[in-house]
Amino acid sequence: MAHPVSPLAVPLPTLAPIAGARLAIGEGGIRYQGRPDVLYAEFAPGTTSAGVFTSNRCPGAPVDWCRAALKAGRGQVRALVVNAGNANVFTGRAGRASCARTAAAAAKLAGCGAKEVMLASTGVIGQTLPDDRITAILPALHQAAQEDAWADAARAIMTTDTFAKGASRTARIGRRTVTITGIAKGSGMIAPDMATMLCFIATDAQIPASLLARRLKQGIAGSFNSTTVDSDTSTSDTVLLFATGQAKHPRITARDDAMLKDFGSALDELLMELALAVVRDGEGAQKLIRIDVAGARSAEGARRVALAIANSPLIKTAIAGEDANWGRVVMAVGKSGERVNRDRLSIAMGGVWMARNGTVVDGYDEAPVVAHIRGREIHIEVDLGGGSARSTVFTCDLTHGYIDINASYRS
Amino acid sequence: MAHPVSPLAVPLPTLAPIAGARLAIGEGGIRYQGRPDVLYAEFAPGTTSAGVFTSNRCPGAPVDWCRAALKAGRGQVRALVVNAGNANVFTGRAGRASCARTAAAAAKLAGCGAKEVMLASTGVIGQTLPDDRITAILPALHQAAQEDAWADAARAIMTTDTFAKGASRTARIGRRTVTITGIAKGSGMIAPDMATMLCFIATDAQIPASLLARRLKQGIAGSFNSTTVDSDTSTSDTVLLFATGQAKHPRITARDDAMLKDFGSALDELLMELALAVVRDGEGAQKLIRIDVAGARSAEGARRVALAIANSPLIKTAIAGEDANWGRVVMAVGKSGERVNRDRLSIAMGGVWMARNGTVVDGYDEAPVVAHIRGREIHIEVDLGGGSARSTVFTCDLTHGYIDINASYRS
Repeated sequence: MAHPVSPLAVPLPTLAPIAGARLAIGEGGIRYQGRPDVLYAEFAPGTTSAGVFTSNRCPGAPVDWCRAALKAGRGQVRALVVNAGNANVFTGRAGRASCARTAAAAAKLAGCGAKEVMLASTGVIGQTLPDDRITAILPALHQAAQEDAWADAARAIMTTDTFAKGASRTARIGRRTVTITGIAKGSGMIAPDMATMLCFIATDAQIPASLLARRLKQGIAGSFNSTTVDSDTSTSDTVLLFATGQAKHPRITARDDAMLKDFGSALDELLMELALAVVRDGEGAQKLIRIDVAGARSAEGARRVALAIANSPLIKTAIAGEDANWGRVVMAVGKSGERVNRDRLSIAMGGVWMARNGTVVDGYDEAPVVAHIRGREIHIEVDLGGGSARSTVFTCDLTHGYIDINASYRS
Repeated sequence: MAHPVSPLAVPLPTLAPIAGARLAIGEGGIRYQGRPDVLYAEFAPGTTSAGVFTSNRCPGAPVDWCRAALKAGRGQVRALVVNAGNANVFTGRAGRASCARTAAAAAKLAGCGAKEVMLASTGVIGQTLPDDRITAILPALHQAAQEDAWADAARAIMTTDTFAKGASRTARIGRRTVTITGIAKGSGMIAPDMATMLCFIATDAQIPASLLARRLKQGIAGSFNSTTVDSDTSTSDTVLLFATGQAKHPRITARDDAMLKDFGSALDELLMELALAVVRDGEGAQKLIRIDVAGARSAEGARRVALAIANSPLIKTAIAGEDANWGRVVMAVGKSGERVNRDRLSIAMGGVWMARNGTVVDGYDEAPVVAHIRGREIHIEVDLGGGSARSTVFTCDLTHGYIDINASYRS
């Protein structure tokens, strides 16, 4: 099962501790042996939280749990329990009971209600989660939890990931500096098995839950929701943001988010860094692909075209083969369903316009494009020539490595 | 570029000649050397025709030509010119001029108007079609055309296809027997390059063009539009049906299609046989996959779920790896966007129900499913438990062969 580290990997940066957020990892032996696979986090009283979850219509039991608990507890959260190796998805009543038992055990340690505990699981679908292996080690994790454990946490939640992913930022709120640190796992936006995307972020800022939810949703749209590996959507995708409120900045009310401008920008940056790290670890990925679509009539239309390109197996395999096959881009634009005027369509790779207004550029010289496509980071630009809306999406290529990983995953 | 013949290949059956349809093939040297790459067909005066074309918004010039010509000529057609190797797509004004010149040359030979000539091209996108190489050999093809040349025709239109595809059927109209013969090319519903799906069918029945169009559209829905290889949609997909009217059956009016019942069934069968042949030649395919979705609230909903399963790279790679990973089916059902009740969802492979009502079947024994998935023809059944509508879709697995073919296609 060990796969070589992605050639697109980036080193884990120094992750700043967050006042009021303590973490610990342990070995539950849920699927993996001899490596940590459980993460426990405890947050200071008064911590607010917001979550964004998978759009999949068959979500896992932990996703159901978090959605209901965030609503019931109005975003007040005190603890988080995550496990790798078993997704607790499609497990029916047994899966719901697992969630309830795990949350109850964590709540007892954190001194809160069960609804103030968030849960996330990633791994195989359809197998009952042995939650007793998690709850058995929770007391030790509660004891060991400390603020400076984010790098360990990033490693504990990995599954098919080939490198650990995390990021930190600071921002100004009033005259105070606040810190944001986040970790993520995922080999793409992709799989229901080991490649679920999970992301946990904490900040010491003090932000009302409703405002936090709005800001997180906005940040996700421009980051995680603008990346794709293979168009498959996990049943467990979860992004949770916790604000411990330990920073001594002026009070922010739910109606007043002007003070959050710098914080919002820092959060967006951090989300983008984590989302790109996930794409860089896309299963079998050899190349990171950026797709910019301009000239659309609406942002939604631009995004639809960008995603059609990003999810086209033919484009992804062409790039894997270092073939600057822009004809496949024409195909993907056309199959997106967006109304486009073929005769105004223009396409560039690596900054070189290959086709303009519906036909190949006169005297088009492939040489610079071939040089570009041999690199690690590929840039595709499409101008629909129909408006002023634009969208950017990131993806990776489709290689033999993807087949290797996914054809032999459970065996 | 030579790829081994698909292990799912079926031999080309005997193709019955159709009275009033004469065919000839020749070497235009458009892309391939030393093999036929041009097909010319001529139809008896009075022949009616209907076409179904790609839904891609960036269609090739020949698709535009056929749509306009069928409309202008009210379905009266006398000739067909097809070339393999160059798709004449995204070629702007030059592409339109190529179509006009080719049609004019064929019309002169067939003794008809240019709008009574159908055109189809398959091959690379974005390169000007050297139509002079086609028109140069048309006079010889016009001379050589004969009714018994369907097998040759099936070979002339191949691109990445690894075997030739054709089928014949007979049907009763009144007390007369009519014949239908068709050929197809395509390595899936898939590519804009060499894997465009083209299909040409002729019958000696005498059927008004409007009725022919209605019946063809209906047949396509249940055959070609229920198959997928990789979710990519060609810019050139074309199905054309020609009725030469040479059979001496009672006259059928546009309003009276009761007499076409048997003919319709035979046409549906023939379309399905050709569509399945295309999936069997799906690029890199090792396994043919049938997906039956039942228990949906609408046929459209059932189809959406079936296509989400059929187009999921994770399911297709799992099957390539002979892994009965039903968790991925849960994922695909959930990502389809169709409203489903996860807790009523049931899944079977090879007739064995693995999951029922949202959880794994008690005492589920994987052994018979593992034996099934090692075979060439895989059967997935999904019951959504929400209604009585159903849908069937066919696809193939996603293998290293697909990457090999598509990563190195133009080089």
